[in-house]
Amino acid sequence: MTARRPSLDEVFAPRGIAVVGVSATGNFATGVLTSLQAAGFPAIYPINPKHSEMHGLPCYARVSDVTGPVDHVVVSIPAEATLSLLDDCATKGVRSVHFFTAGFGESGEAEGADLEVAMLDKARRGGFRILGPNCVGLFVPRMKVVNNAGLPLEPGPVAFISQSGGHAFTLPAYGAPRGLRFSKVVSYGNGLDIDAAELLDYLADDDETEVIAAYIEGVKDGDWFRRALSRAAARKPVVIYKGGTTDAGQRAAYGHTASLTSSVAVFDALCRQTGAILVDDIDEVVDVLVALRFAHPLPQGSGVIIMGGGGGPSVHASDEMEKAGLYLPNLSSQERDRFKDVLPVAGSIFANPIDTQNLATPPAIEAAVGIVSQLPEADMLLYHLGFHPISSWGSGRFSAPEFLSAVIGTFRRARAATGKPVLLVLRPGLDLGEMKEFLAAQEAFVAAGLPVFHSLRQAGLAMARVIEWAARRQD
Amino acid sequence: MTARRPSLDEVFAPRGIAVVGVSATGNFATGVLTSLQAAGFPAIYPINPKHSEMHGLPCYARVSDVTGPVDHVVVSIPAEATLSLLDDCATKGVRSVHFFTAGFGESGEAEGADLEVAMLDKARRGGFRILGPNCVGLFVPRMKVVNNAGLPLEPGPVAFISQSGGHAFTLPAYGAPRGLRFSKVVSYGNGLDIDAAELLDYLADDDETEVIAAYIEGVKDGDWFRRALSRAAARKPVVIYKGGTTDAGQRAAYGHTASLTSSVAVFDALCRQTGAILVDDIDEVVDVLVALRFAHPLPQGSGVIIMGGGGGPSVHASDEMEKAGLYLPNLSSQERDRFKDVLPVAGSIFANPIDTQNLATPPAIEAAVGIVSQLPEADMLLYHLGFHPISSWGSGRFSAPEFLSAVIGTFRRARAATGKPVLLVLRPGLDLGEMKEFLAAQEAFVAAGLPVFHSLRQAGLAMARVIEWAARRQD
Repeated sequence: MTARRPSLDEVFAPRGIAVVGVSATGNFATGVLTSLQAAGFPAIYPINPKHSEMHGLPCYARVSDVTGPVDHVVVSIPAEATLSLLDDCATKGVRSVHFFTAGFGESGEAEGADLEVAMLDKARRGGFRILGPNCVGLFVPRMKVVNNAGLPLEPGPVAFISQSGGHAFTLPAYGAPRGLRFSKVVSYGNGLDIDAAELLDYLADDDETEVIAAYIEGVKDGDWFRRALSRAAARKPVVIYKGGTTDAGQRAAYGHTASLTSSVAVFDALCRQTGAILVDDIDEVVDVLVALRFAHPLPQGSGVIIMGGGGGPSVHASDEMEKAGLYLPNLSSQERDRFKDVLPVAGSIFANPIDTQNLATPPAIEAAVGIVSQLPEADMLLYHLGFHPISSWGSGRFSAPEFLSAVIGTFRRARAATGKPVLLVLRPGLDLGEMKEFLAAQEAFVAAGLPVFHSLRQAGLAMARVIEWAARRQD
Repeated sequence: MTARRPSLDEVFAPRGIAVVGVSATGNFATGVLTSLQAAGFPAIYPINPKHSEMHGLPCYARVSDVTGPVDHVVVSIPAEATLSLLDDCATKGVRSVHFFTAGFGESGEAEGADLEVAMLDKARRGGFRILGPNCVGLFVPRMKVVNNAGLPLEPGPVAFISQSGGHAFTLPAYGAPRGLRFSKVVSYGNGLDIDAAELLDYLADDDETEVIAAYIEGVKDGDWFRRALSRAAARKPVVIYKGGTTDAGQRAAYGHTASLTSSVAVFDALCRQTGAILVDDIDEVVDVLVALRFAHPLPQGSGVIIMGGGGGPSVHASDEMEKAGLYLPNLSSQERDRFKDVLPVAGSIFANPIDTQNLATPPAIEAAVGIVSQLPEADMLLYHLGFHPISSWGSGRFSAPEFLSAVIGTFRRARAATGKPVLLVLRPGLDLGEMKEFLAAQEAFVAAGLPVFHSLRQAGLAMARVIEWAARRQD
């Protein structure tokens, strides 16, 4: 007998959440519990037969002891205790059970794989879904469903599905300070029941999701995955980081999520055919998401005008942009002369890149931006602070509020007047003082809706990928 | 008439320094002056006809007005005033004149190039050397000769020569927290007189220098440079970052230091022939220097055992190491069993990488290191903290002093017992709290003489380069 399977819409909107395995000393389940409390989720039920209260909440011996509705269950108990727990979940009539618990198929032991088969059978019969095992589960900001402290709770249009629990925490943590906000972040681990293909199908139709990112080690149903990716990528940008692209990485992926990874060449071809953007690590996922969300309007071509501080950094910027596949249009002698009218000559390079080391004042930046943003070959403008502590540029302090608001005004006006995106590259600080200045500057730029990258290389790579993606879509 | 040319040994050990162009409002010269004061250089002479005192020091109208010995002159005045200044320097009998001043050959104007010819002529006749123009000059810690605030004043064995002034500040700033200390850092800009070839010849023989790094945009005397690089690289490791490897980068390099850069292929071949290590940016220079200095004993092969937190990071580590050209030996079933005896099974991956996410305690790390460091195929051991804030691992806090001292003891014992290097990968923090923890951990590891890298990719790339370099030397 197979019962009705709850939809993912139901899974992502639980009315009550039971947390099984909460301990007094602190563990994953405890972290989920306190995070749900901090986020203000209304109906949290700790489950532990040894306690009557946990973190100020009534504690229950079994899920089925809870009187209110329990739609979602978060589980962090040893693998061997899972089957009886699932019977209890069926009794209660839950919609979904998320297993943080590891030690299943990925352990490489026969018992682990057998256990997974039995779990799936109980879920089918009991009419509920399984998320994981071996994952950190759900982060759905709009529903106040969270799985870690410090996540960005304001909802947004980015969805992320991840076979790695670590990456499911890392992406929001890295993305939030750069302006990314999330619709659904789903860590699905071994993908015993809910897997990448179903998630992609769901997100393709999800009105709350405009951009999809995925960390994938392996796929179980290759045909379904291909269809789902095709459909999703036809509707929305899809960014994929494939883990396990080398022999060693494939062995590690098998040990991690029992994934039999497909060959790199196959995956690469699949992304090209479907129009998904394939990247190499989690930082690159963040960079491409930042480009897709904030490098607006998306550039119409690959011509980049670079402005920023220092000769060495200018040479580096040139090399990195050209290696990434972008193009640095030359300035004409007429344009060079216009620069010399408004800016000092000594120590400056009136070419592209434009070295503004001595010109880090709002009027100088305004004058330079005014000249270059009009150039017909300029598809985007990139402003960088070189490699130094932000505060060391010019006589002013780049992170001073009046400076920041002035240059932000300049960048926004240039973007509005020309319809070309303005990109920022800020290097994170080396010590606490520099880091404080970096964070202030980044926060101001991000609040103004500008894309901030942390290195010239990362900016060039992300923009080249997005431009290539946009060009393929127009074909 | 050509006078005797002072040697670079004389240039690097000035008895007195005059600083020309010091202003009351602050500029490069003022920064040099106050940095020299802070470093305790004994004989500093500000030069400015409009003042009788600057920063508590007697101020002179001309260099020749100073009564004590002036061996080195730092100049930050407009290009057009340089020739009369040089006449005055000749009168005083100085050994070297460093021009921060730009607007010479690199400006692309005929007057700039003509001026350089006249300057060189005056230097030859006056018996002094010119450093630059268009550079930040000398940093010689042992002599307390400094050109910026906050440089690492403790002398050490790393020399760096740089055509970029920015990079000459950046490399010590990035390298110091990772344990690098310097013999001589020389920013030589346009290289009008003192150029890369002469500096390499000098550093090859310099007893204070064990490792040489260079940032080069272009070379003037190709034959001399090739001979000097060959000789230096035969004696000491030489790490070269070549700026201007693309068309756009070459244009920028010409605008920066008037360098006509040689083709990438030629430079690449030159490094291969001479045994120099060619890298792509300043971060990679730092990484290779850290590997050369602290990955001791240098690994005998490319087999790396990876330990650290998280399944996703373990997959990433595998992919990055193998892409870099390193090799991850498999664990035998015997070795896997030894792990299972000492460490919990659930959520761990007893393969290579070894996922120690749940095992971030000193005894667990000690047990794991004890097992893997004995493996015959392991040439080095890499421990990483994944992608998360350091503090979020396990139940302990990795940056707690007692934790750090315990794991440092483990790593040092493993290194001593096996003769294999132990490498650390720590990700810098995203906010001030994380950054504080990161800095504490980095400082402790660096103080213990361990190499610290900031990403798995950077660690893999640096180690692969050093191993390849060592292998070529043994051929």
